[in-house]
Amino acid sequence: MHDDQEVAVLRLGHRPGRDERMTTHVGLTARALGADRVLFPDNAGQSLETVADITDRFGGPFEVELTDSPNAVIRGWDGRVVHLTMYGERIQDVEGDIRSAHRDEGEPLLLVVGSEKVAFDVYEAADWNVGVTNQPHSEVAGLAVFLDRLFEGRELEREWVGADRRVIPMETGKRVEPA
Amino acid sequence: MHDDQEVAVLRLGHRPGRDERMTTHVGLTARALGADRVLFPDNAGQSLETVADITDRFGGPFEVELTDSPNAVIRGWDGRVVHLTMYGERIQDVEGDIRSAHRDEGEPLLLVVGSEKVAFDVYEAADWNVGVTNQPHSEVAGLAVFLDRLFEGRELEREWVGADRRVIPMETGKRVEPA
Repeated sequence: MHDDQEVAVLRLGHRPGRDERMTTHVGLTARALGADRVLFPDNAGQSLETVADITDRFGGPFEVELTDSPNAVIRGWDGRVVHLTMYGERIQDVEGDIRSAHRDEGEPLLLVVGSEKVAFDVYEAADWNVGVTNQPHSEVAGLAVFLDRLFEGRELEREWVGADRRVIPMETGKRVEPA
Repeated sequence: MHDDQEVAVLRLGHRPGRDERMTTHVGLTARALGADRVLFPDNAGQSLETVADITDRFGGPFEVELTDSPNAVIRGWDGRVVHLTMYGERIQDVEGDIRSAHRDEGEPLLLVVGSEKVAFDVYEAADWNVGVTNQPHSEVAGLAVFLDRLFEGRELEREWVGADRRVIPMETGKRVEPA
């Protein structure tokens, strides 16, 4: 986000039809909450279209891409890898180290978000396996809380570039203006 | 959560089949991140089963219910109503007031989470319409960030009662023990 090193989100696993909305929500959450880029499996073209369309209308910068080898993205990542999983270390115990690696040491971060089953390789390749609670809930919720804590709320103040519309915060009702 | 006044989540709108996972994720996120109860529309019985099953296995207290009249739940709520919407006031501007109403004034909170279209009545009935960003993303992400900020992270330290298993946080790998 902004002048920081890159934060990218990698979505593992996608079953067309069944996972369309979850994958799309991973992408839109990544965009709205300060990540710079999301990578989807190459069968998630429909989710890519939706995220690209929202970025066209509501602004960026934000990139969405497909990859035919998520494992190669993880192996080749020049920076630190964070795998979000309910089996990982508690976010409240490790977030300071991750923030420090990103902000102070200037390490790009790859946030890996699984779906159903994640191969053991991913646990081993990650610099941190992180649980946003050790309870079963939602990869979208975990990503959202992680990003809000990583950026300590600064993501809520970001400016959007190239939007053709913007929502004006309102006490009641809806107001959308040309950007 | 714990000794606080109740925090309940009301999910508006549910299309069986299409919305099953999103509604389930709203319920599981509510549970994992400190809400006391979730109410689903009465055609969301499958999501209710999943949330009840997770609560049986991983613990509570947490309640999941169906309602045939979400509007009556809102109108009859004895406390404050927060509607999460991308058109609302910025969370960073209003979270202090909401926390203070809940924690200091002891007001139970009803968090209303929409799906596609939300009727204007809901905007009017809410004490606060709140945007977790004014960008389109995910109702699950918005709920997650809202709860984490409402409880200021205390929800991550809660104890679970009546679980038959628990996940032990690990640097690498998975460890689940009988509770």
